[in-house]
Formats: sequence, C-alpha cells, structure tokens
Amino acid sequence: MKILVVNCGGSSIKCKLMEMPEEKVLAKGAVERIGKADAVVTLKSDTAERRETAAIPDHAAGLEVLMQQIIAAFGEGAVESIGHRAVHGGREVTGAVVVDAHVKEIIASYCDLAPLHNPPNLKGIEACERLFPGITQVAVFDTALHTNLPECAYIYALPHELCSKYRIRRYGFHGIAFQYMAERAAVLFETPVEKLRLVQLMLGSGTTANALRYGKSIDVSTGLTPTEGLVQSTRCGDLDPLVVTYLMRREGMAPERMEKLLCNESGWLGISGISNDLREVELAITTGDSRAHAAYETFVYRTKKYIGAYAAAMGGIDALTIAGGVGEGSAQVRAAILSGLEFLGIELDAARNQDPQPEKIISSRDSRVKVAVVAADEELVIARDTWAIASQR
Amino acid sequence: MKILVVNCGGSSIKCKLMEMPEEKVLAKGAVERIGKADAVVTLKSDTAERRETAAIPDHAAGLEVLMQQIIAAFGEGAVESIGHRAVHGGREVTGAVVVDAHVKEIIASYCDLAPLHNPPNLKGIEACERLFPGITQVAVFDTALHTNLPECAYIYALPHELCSKYRIRRYGFHGIAFQYMAERAAVLFETPVEKLRLVQLMLGSGTTANALRYGKSIDVSTGLTPTEGLVQSTRCGDLDPLVVTYLMRREGMAPERMEKLLCNESGWLGISGISNDLREVELAITTGDSRAHAAYETFVYRTKKYIGAYAAAMGGIDALTIAGGVGEGSAQVRAAILSGLEFLGIELDAARNQDPQPEKIISSRDSRVKVAVVAADEELVIARDTWAIASQR
Repeated sequence: MKILVVNCGGSSIKCKLMEMPEEKVLAKGAVERIGKADAVVTLKSDTAERRETAAIPDHAAGLEVLMQQIIAAFGEGAVESIGHRAVHGGREVTGAVVVDAHVKEIIASYCDLAPLHNPPNLKGIEACERLFPGITQVAVFDTALHTNLPECAYIYALPHELCSKYRIRRYGFHGIAFQYMAERAAVLFETPVEKLRLVQLMLGSGTTANALRYGKSIDVSTGLTPTEGLVQSTRCGDLDPLVVTYLMRREGMAPERMEKLLCNESGWLGISGISNDLREVELAITTGDSRAHAAYETFVYRTKKYIGAYAAAMGGIDALTIAGGVGEGSAQVRAAILSGLEFLGIELDAARNQDPQPEKIISSRDSRVKVAVVAADEELVIARDTWAIASQR
Repeated sequence: MKILVVNCGGSSIKCKLMEMPEEKVLAKGAVERIGKADAVVTLKSDTAERRETAAIPDHAAGLEVLMQQIIAAFGEGAVESIGHRAVHGGREVTGAVVVDAHVKEIIASYCDLAPLHNPPNLKGIEACERLFPGITQVAVFDTALHTNLPECAYIYALPHELCSKYRIRRYGFHGIAFQYMAERAAVLFETPVEKLRLVQLMLGSGTTANALRYGKSIDVSTGLTPTEGLVQSTRCGDLDPLVVTYLMRREGMAPERMEKLLCNESGWLGISGISNDLREVELAITTGDSRAHAAYETFVYRTKKYIGAYAAAMGGIDALTIAGGVGEGSAQVRAAILSGLEFLGIELDAARNQDPQPEKIISSRDSRVKVAVVAADEELVIARDTWAIASQR
C-alpha cells in the first residue's frame, strides 16, 4: 500500500510517499514559501527530481501541485491512503485515528492552544479530502503519547476553575518521535519497553524530555505549549512565571509581543546572541565567547536536571535515548549531558559516542543504564500507524 | 550582648531580644495590623507579657512602641545591637553586613524585585537608626547564600540584554533558613558541610528547595521571585511561561492582576479550592475530596522531582534536610516525598519519622543518604551573624 505522509507547517508542507508495510520511501516532496508568488514545490525519488516555482496561495494549492507531481511520477491511484502529522489533540486523542468530522472538530478546538500548528494541520487534511476523495486519512498526534499522564504530572498549581475553563494543563509534545525512540530502544537494548524505565531526550531546535515508565508516558517537559521545559533553540524553557509579568510591566509589552520574545528570541539564541543553531554556538565557544559558553552550559545543565527529575519520578532509570538534530549531531553535547550521572548508573563509552553511525548504543558494556542515540523518524511512525489502520479497512 | 532581631513584613513586625553568645531568648515581640487604628503590640518574656492596642500608622511607630516596652521590661540600654532580617540583597550581598548608606542603597535598589519585602525591611532599618542611635545594625539577607550560584543555574534563557538591563536572574530565597539547616546537618550527621552534597527542603507556606554542594549553594528552586519552583501555599511554582500570557489574553488581565493570581490564589489553595493550610488539605483528603488529593499529590510529586534534579546537579547526594511548618509538621508529607527514592540511597525509618521531637534523623541506620528534620530558626542565624560582627567592633 502506498501511503502519503503529510506534515503541514505554517508556510510549508513536507511529504513522503512510502510503500508499506515494506517501509520503502518512494519519494520525498516539499512545498516551501506558501503564500508567496515564488513558492517552490519539489518531489524527489531515487530516479527523478521535479522542481516547480509557482504562486502557491495556500496549503490546498500546494498539495494540488504536489499531487500532480506524484501522479506524473507514479501514475493515477498512486496514493492509497494518507497519514497526517497533527500536533495538538488535547485530552481527547490517545492514538492514531481515522480522520472524520469529530477528529477535525478536535483539531479545530485546539487551534487556540496550538495556533502555529493546528490551523495548517486542518488545512492539509481538508485539502487532501478534496484532492483524494474516498481515501482513508489517518491523523497521528504529537500529544497523543502523553494523554494519560498522571494527574500530579499534568496539573499546574493554578486556580482549578480557570484551568478547567481554558483546558490549561500539561499536554506535552514530540510524542511521535518518542514513540519511535522507544521502539528502537526495545530493539537496541533487547528489552520490551514494558520492562524499561526510560528517559528520552528529543534535542532538536525544539527540545523535549520524556519519562516513559514501562511503556507509558508519565511525564514530559513541554507543557501547555512547546515553550516549557528544556532550553531550546529560540524558546526559553522553564522560567519564573513572574519574569513574564515583570518584563511586561517594565517594557510595556502586550501578551502577544511577550509570546514572540519567549518563543522566537530566547533559548540559546537569546542567551548567546549568536545563533539559533547550536553548532554555531559551539563554534563560538572555541573562540572564547563567554555568552556562547553560558548558552551551552545552561542548556546542558538543565537537561541533566531533567534526567535526575525523571529518575526520581520513576524510582530510577534503566535506559536513556537521545535523538534530534542536536542529540544525534553532537557527541560533545551528549558527553556533557551525561557526565556526572554515574550515580544513576549511567556510564558513557567515549569511543562509541564518537561512532559516526546515526544509531548506536553509547553506554559502556558495564553501564547499568543503557544509552542509545536514535535517528528519530517521525514519518515512519505515521506511515506505520496509518498502515495499521488503513490495511484493516 | 543583648541583640534585637527585627523582621519587618508588609503590615507586621516580629522581633526577638536575645542574649548572645548564650543564645538565650529574653523576649519575643510583635506588631500586627500596622496602618490600622487597632494595631496590636505585644512583648512576651518568661516573666511577663505586655499587650497594647493603639493606632500604629507605620513601621517606625510600631518599633517605637516595641522599644518602649523593651525599655520598660529590661531597662535603658537593653538593646546593644540589632540584626535585621532582609530579603533581597541581589548580586551584591554575599553575607551578613553592617548597615550603612551603601547597604541601604542596595536594599532600595531591589525594591522593584521584592516589592513586598524590601520596602518594609528598609523602613525597619531606618526607624531603628533613629530609635537606637549609635548602635551597630547588621542586615542578614535571604538571598545571600545563593549569590554565587554557577552561571548555568542562575541564567534564564531570555535575551541577554533584557536580563542585564533589568537584573533578571535566579536569586533564590530562604537562604537564612538553609544556612541554619546546613549547620544542623553538620552536627546531626557528624560531618562538616564541606563534605556533604546536601539537598535542603524548606516546606512552609513558602517552599524552596536548595542544592548545597560542599557548603556552597549551587542551585535553588525560587528564582527572580519566590514564586518559581515547588508548589507553595498560594504561589504556583513552576509553570509554562505561556500559560501566563495565554490567561492574560483570554481573561483580559493586566500584569498586576496576573501576579496576584499567581502569588495569592494559586498553589495548593488554587488546586484544592480548600485552604492555603496544607493540614486542611490533608484533612479533606480523608473525606475523599479529589481536588485536595490532586493538590497534595502534585505538591509531593514536584518536590520529589527537585530532589532528583539536584542529585543530578551534584552528581549524587549524601544528605537531605527538611524544615518549615509543613516539613516539620507532617510525617505523612515527608514519607510521601521520600518514597521511591531508594535508588538515590534514601531509606526512611518509619518509626523515627513519627518521633514527636522537632529535630531528628529520620533515615534508617543503614541509609546511605542521611535525612533529618530540622526546626529552622532564622532568628538565631541572624542573632549569631549579628553577634559575630558586633562583638568585633
């Protein structure tokens, strides 16, 4: 079955056409600069590459051009079912679901809590319904893994009525990546996830830490929004909540301006003043830049604390996985984060940590806690989940 | 030497007259309802109790009545030096200091960051300068213990320039109590603090966790303000910073209103809807109240996570101290917080934990990590620090 995996962002679409259950990538497509007169649509396969520049006013137009390219390359009927990456499914969605009116309502109802993600997700789904009528569409949510967090982990200590009224709680994100990472952990460590207390670190430009106890997500560092938790590329992570109001008072900022500051101007970009790319921050450290050093150290230190906190939440840990651009790319970051955690049973193997392979075990043979780097493949999770549902219909 | 320890709050003054270095409390005084026509001034000693109701317009007037009561009870010259509890000394103050123009400037300069504490602290100092001319006055700060936190622990991941401009960083509070607790830890565990990686929990209506590594505070849960960190009586503790702006947008709240919500209406009061007194929350749990249960569990769970995080920050822990009204009062809270932390080397002795004595070791004899309950005595720390300085002049 050919499954199209669709990921609609604010001004872009990414897609993969996959042959399932063989897990073979047939083509990768992308639309960039949606809303512009010179948007770019590309489709790459092993044998050909198509590239088109056109005015693409919206996601529907972008998907239509992508569909034409797919048909030109693979013929009519090339797409047999579709899997959508969706971000915020709130408390209602606990796994992959067939898209229907109710699911679309859920996505729409969380647009206010995920204004950058849910509206384009919904546009992509509706465009696909028109372009591929009668085809099974499945939505896979970033929040779904965390839907059943224990109450003590998802509650904020605010007046209960306000939290109920506005559905304010910890939702947590990166669930699709964590699902993949946990599956790889089971394979690499030859232990079912049901027997592992697993800390997972998704360290990309967005960063999330996850405590997965015996296969169930029991805590996650991202919260109501992706901004809470670890220091991120441009998001601030944990912060005294009164810093927000203090800065607003002192600078006369409106909430919207403050959100832009916390989400787009903070993180390691904000501390370093150098870049939202941690590789550039690491480079600046080698030239003695003290702010780059501070950004790096703060990111590392806070990540370390989350590992300890989640160990406490699970009564100890058995294994740890690391993924994401930073997590996969920087042996130095991994070594820094794991140093000093020997008391938890974590022992890094320096040589393994330098291994250029994308997926590898990096703990020493004697390490009680097993540690692996995983190349998180969210599209594969979506394709698998979509296949599991669509192949039964 | 008779030392008057003075603690000026928003609408109250507490004081203790102590004979030092004998550490004998000669009298306890208080002024309540400052600013009202029916304010109450009391002074209690072993032999007498004075109580006066009067219009007390301000802190100066309150201190003047207290001074008259002290002179009536102990004669002229009864106060030989004064130790003030001060809250926010910023980055400038690293220990107890003799009050001079520079110290008063520092306290004044942090009034915007500690609006509830620094203004009355300053009023108390200035009133005492007028009432007790020529007497050595010492200020002991709640932030001082944390002045030399490592940069990675005090930085917020915000634009560097804004943090510099407004002196935004983690300051941390409850330092006077933590100093006392650490001193008791050294005595109880027969080990100098310089050899201990110590996690300290101050669990009162305000709550703070502290990581004291080999005698130095290297992290603390309260931040720019006392609101960050653990769940507190009416303060929210850790929170996705975007909850703040989200609620402000949805409810049309100004920053000042939001601060009131986060500081006075949240915490276990906010979750439970029952009380800012945890004993009443615990009582409601016994009647099956689910929100009380949620408040209690969230408070316990977050505290547990801080222990794990600070263990990670210090590469493991050797000892743990617990103090504050909740920490000293509730064996149940202590048992709940420490359960599941055996992997850190913590083993509670259930019988010792029930011991009615205020100060006690509650870890088992075999516990690798020693745990003690301490009856924090901040006034004694202030009296000792004041004695150490005043007796040398």
